[in-house]
Amino acid sequence: VTSAARDEAAWIAFIAHLWGTSDAKVGPGDDGCVLPSGSYTLTTDTLLEGVDFEREWAPPQAVGYKAMAANLSDLAAMGATPRFLLMTLAVPEAVPEKYVEGVVEGIRALGVAEGVGLVGGDLSSSKSGLVISLTLAGAQEAAPLLRSGGKPGDVLFLSGPIGGPAAALRRFQSGGRLGTFEFGTRPPAPEQALLDRFYRPPGQTGLGIRLASDRLASCCMDVSDGLMKDLARMCEASGCGAEIEARSLPLDPLLGVQDEDRELENALRGGEEQVLLFAVPRRLASEVEVKCAGVRAIGRLVEGDRRVLVLPGDRREELPANGFDHFAS
Amino acid sequence: VTSAARDEAAWIAFIAHLWGTSDAKVGPGDDGCVLPSGSYTLTTDTLLEGVDFEREWAPPQAVGYKAMAANLSDLAAMGATPRFLLMTLAVPEAVPEKYVEGVVEGIRALGVAEGVGLVGGDLSSSKSGLVISLTLAGAQEAAPLLRSGGKPGDVLFLSGPIGGPAAALRRFQSGGRLGTFEFGTRPPAPEQALLDRFYRPPGQTGLGIRLASDRLASCCMDVSDGLMKDLARMCEASGCGAEIEARSLPLDPLLGVQDEDRELENALRGGEEQVLLFAVPRRLASEVEVKCAGVRAIGRLVEGDRRVLVLPGDRREELPANGFDHFAS
Repeated sequence: VTSAARDEAAWIAFIAHLWGTSDAKVGPGDDGCVLPSGSYTLTTDTLLEGVDFEREWAPPQAVGYKAMAANLSDLAAMGATPRFLLMTLAVPEAVPEKYVEGVVEGIRALGVAEGVGLVGGDLSSSKSGLVISLTLAGAQEAAPLLRSGGKPGDVLFLSGPIGGPAAALRRFQSGGRLGTFEFGTRPPAPEQALLDRFYRPPGQTGLGIRLASDRLASCCMDVSDGLMKDLARMCEASGCGAEIEARSLPLDPLLGVQDEDRELENALRGGEEQVLLFAVPRRLASEVEVKCAGVRAIGRLVEGDRRVLVLPGDRREELPANGFDHFAS
Repeated sequence: VTSAARDEAAWIAFIAHLWGTSDAKVGPGDDGCVLPSGSYTLTTDTLLEGVDFEREWAPPQAVGYKAMAANLSDLAAMGATPRFLLMTLAVPEAVPEKYVEGVVEGIRALGVAEGVGLVGGDLSSSKSGLVISLTLAGAQEAAPLLRSGGKPGDVLFLSGPIGGPAAALRRFQSGGRLGTFEFGTRPPAPEQALLDRFYRPPGQTGLGIRLASDRLASCCMDVSDGLMKDLARMCEASGCGAEIEARSLPLDPLLGVQDEDRELENALRGGEEQVLLFAVPRRLASEVEVKCAGVRAIGRLVEGDRRVLVLPGDRREELPANGFDHFAS
């Protein structure tokens, strides 16, 4: 049975039943959804089959989970509280109904855990790959965290390790497969943990809200295209340079390091981490280390526009800006 | 030169330059956009190459224009004022840069004319067709117009003629091509007018706002999947049946009617019109006809759940619900 066997109305009914109602004033089923009055931050992120994932790599629940997580990470980077989801799916006829259901279950599992209600979207057939395009609205209660606003002297932090997802991607491309994907807290089998990490960015909604509400961060962004590239963007927006301490960089422990230099370079290029990179005025840095479990100071913003990696023995290397480019061939 | 020659940053710069700034608190360039505080209605609609359009049918400006118009029509159906756009494009490497620029120009031309600011989005490569997915936020100043709320006795109106876009689609599928697409008010060449209509739904933002602010409509929706199907949806949401007068149905004058019965049936199945279907309490019907230029009364809501077409000589035919289904093969 392929997805074409279920018509649009039946898919809408399936999704509505799975998800239940939200506290939107007008939810799915009308031409638009009406949000409760307030201050909102919107983010949107799309996963495409053949570009961002292949169906044979992992169960569909993992793909849906990752699609939701990518949007949640953007909201966290702004310090917003996730609230409402628009879900667009374009489904090729050949994709089995069960696969699409699995994607929706993955989106929902993480969405519901984060308090997100489904309020609308768009369903379409696709003549090519599966398209999953999500738009999230978050309540912006505190002033938003921006990429700009960092000052020379501010301490740079990462919310989690880097390098894991990029390494997992290389494994998928050379035949690695994730057999199962659980929504609960049960850890994946050790040999599957790195592949699992690709689909399971860390939850950091609370961290983003804390940084915004307590005014701890001078600037913040989601690292999704590699630390080198995203650091360059933050430095440009803030009009600063940066110094990164190589020995402070949290390499993903799942990498099982063999060639440390190589791993470091890969991790700097990285991609898909969806961890937060943020700067903190020096006087607040120790407060951040106490209040925000798991974050790691990796360096600092400096005057100028150069970004430098400080290696053991005070060897200094310029960091180029090339991370992952969505249009690079 | 294909789109892959321009990297992501260059595309973002091109789009930002083309569009200029909006009055969002935080616009494009951060991980999310922050809207001014208020009451918003969100809509989203996606056009896919190979499903909703083929590149050879028309200039790219037409495709972009239609993508924006489809979303505007949903906001109009809610009575919202268009304000902010998230634009997601997934572009295959083989699509020329000029084509993508044209799509963006089309989105922008209509967006700017309607007061819409670009605040964010997502850019990606695509391994298959071009994907254009837009999300619009509209200011919801009056109570939203819904599909529910219609009552037996209410007069049914259409905001414009039907049947044109479906006929144009048949022409495209049998080799018809739209040579040029203008943003201004200059009408297309007569032999191109029907093909042009496919990409140019009528502007009805003002009508939607008027219906909502003056509380003229008891229910309203955008007809995009064919009148038969969308009428069935409205009747179900409102718990009513309907009687439609065949001789009152506004067939698109561009059709150049030859076989009237056939044209009527095609128009009822229709699709892609993006005109408004709305019901008005009988005591307000004449006020609507005065205040809302170009609308046409086509029948009324009735008790029960049957939808009936009243033909000349009081011949009555049951209207089935089958219009265009996005998953029908």
